[in-house]
Amino acid sequence: MANELRKDYVLDRWVIVATGRGKRPDEFRKTREYETKAGVCYFCPGNESMTPPEISRVREGEGWSIRVFPNKFPAVTLDADKSMSATPAYGEHDVIVETPQHDKGLSDLPVEHLARVLEVYSQRIEELSRREGIAYVMAFKNWGREAGASLEHTHTQLVSTPFVPKLVKEELEAARVYKSEKGSCPYCDAWKKEVSSERLIMQDENIAAFTPYASRVPMEAWIMPKRHVGRLKDLGGNELSSMAAALKTTLGKLKGLGDTPYNYYLHISPEKDDYHMHIEILPKMAVWAGFELGSEVYINTLTPEAAAEYYRRE
Amino acid sequence: MANELRKDYVLDRWVIVATGRGKRPDEFRKTREYETKAGVCYFCPGNESMTPPEISRVREGEGWSIRVFPNKFPAVTLDADKSMSATPAYGEHDVIVETPQHDKGLSDLPVEHLARVLEVYSQRIEELSRREGIAYVMAFKNWGREAGASLEHTHTQLVSTPFVPKLVKEELEAARVYKSEKGSCPYCDAWKKEVSSERLIMQDENIAAFTPYASRVPMEAWIMPKRHVGRLKDLGGNELSSMAAALKTTLGKLKGLGDTPYNYYLHISPEKDDYHMHIEILPKMAVWAGFELGSEVYINTLTPEAAAEYYRRE
Repeated sequence: MANELRKDYVLDRWVIVATGRGKRPDEFRKTREYETKAGVCYFCPGNESMTPPEISRVREGEGWSIRVFPNKFPAVTLDADKSMSATPAYGEHDVIVETPQHDKGLSDLPVEHLARVLEVYSQRIEELSRREGIAYVMAFKNWGREAGASLEHTHTQLVSTPFVPKLVKEELEAARVYKSEKGSCPYCDAWKKEVSSERLIMQDENIAAFTPYASRVPMEAWIMPKRHVGRLKDLGGNELSSMAAALKTTLGKLKGLGDTPYNYYLHISPEKDDYHMHIEILPKMAVWAGFELGSEVYINTLTPEAAAEYYRRE
Repeated sequence: MANELRKDYVLDRWVIVATGRGKRPDEFRKTREYETKAGVCYFCPGNESMTPPEISRVREGEGWSIRVFPNKFPAVTLDADKSMSATPAYGEHDVIVETPQHDKGLSDLPVEHLARVLEVYSQRIEELSRREGIAYVMAFKNWGREAGASLEHTHTQLVSTPFVPKLVKEELEAARVYKSEKGSCPYCDAWKKEVSSERLIMQDENIAAFTPYASRVPMEAWIMPKRHVGRLKDLGGNELSSMAAALKTTLGKLKGLGDTPYNYYLHISPEKDDYHMHIEILPKMAVWAGFELGSEVYINTLTPEAAAEYYRRE
């Protein structure tokens, strides 16, 4: 196949799909690095006193199944000094430990547990959003040291900021332009198109999972509710379960590829905006090098179609 | 120091400088990985027949000191099939091997040699730009496997594209707005400010090297001609020598930090535009994780001021 230029559904973001090296998904295999477990894990049961004071937990028996507390090294803080001339880095930075089990990844957990994790995301996102001066809450996960995880025990992070981050703002604006021109939501149009394309990973009545047409990295995957909703709180129980199941399947495939390191993040609607929320999963199988950094154009050496075929494989 | 939000000189690009972990530059040390040299190096003298046909060389005795040839696995090609419905990935993709010596990095080469390398960049950028349908030529370098280099032997790449890449376009537009508001070039203003700031790395009459105010990564460094010029071809011999010297010093410091992997790229003016060219060096000491990928806001855990202090150290 000849190389191809592809554009994102709405953003002015271009990808060069360059398959000259003809690699298959399993040739991108990159196994997650484990930290040498010297000493204790701060996130394991019994070491709760080693984290900053707990914000909340989902109880299970005497213990917990999910735990929320502030990040010990926050990127943003509520006491950011507003008297300084520089703009303070105002906000909150939380950690959500999704399971007490040190040796598990998300795809090892039951669907019901993952649905509960999404509920915890949702609840805490709404709490952080209510804080005065906050414009956005970014929920994201780093799995594996190569994907930026500094601790091995599985966890998600939430960062609230006084501004809507650049990429989210660009999507909101591009979606607004698209809607005014075509009269429809670009993300509604995207999943409707992708469920009958070669890029479908899986779907049910609530959720579509697919490799986006202009995937930036090998095995990129998006999970999107079919209903046009802006935030997790707008999803019903069945929809959360469907989303959890899609997450488990997709991340399970990455685990099958040698426990691939990955990042994912939620793109949600700022409170008063109109937007179609979704999860974007970016496996860490390739490096963005000088070309990508200097251009913000991405060279992807695996077609999204080949990636989806791998995700669909039994 | 409290965390701080900082904005790029012109772009709507924000960085959270978060120094809570209080790491010093040498704690970010990340040594370049070497490929196991199984078999031959395609870029070494004697193996010239293993690369695609040579485009040009700088002769030295019977051999060469710098060599230019097409990339064997090009991201873009001239025969991109325009009859396809998808947009073809049209352009050329070259490799410049800057020295026949397999075990050298750029900072090991004499300043005069590096100046010659910049001349070769310049000449080939102009050649590629003259090709019909080309809007931009991106010159970039990946050093070390962690920075995306697939071959160990030092080399630079050039990719020409039928469009101006997103990041360059954003800089051009932002610079235009700045100029219409303030009457001056933002990059001229930036170097003038930075040479008397704590972020200065080095300067002479022609060139300023500094860690940018809103550095995205630890030890980020920019090298900028003081004259408002758009392309390498607009620089005189003394200016190229100064730029080569700044490159040698800056990259030499990174080599001293355990042979840090890095990327650099040139931002130049598209042919008929008004822009202030410069080189941006991004060492690979930290990982952009879920937050950065989802927001395009960057968390940098080393202040540019501490980075510059390290660069200036004898």
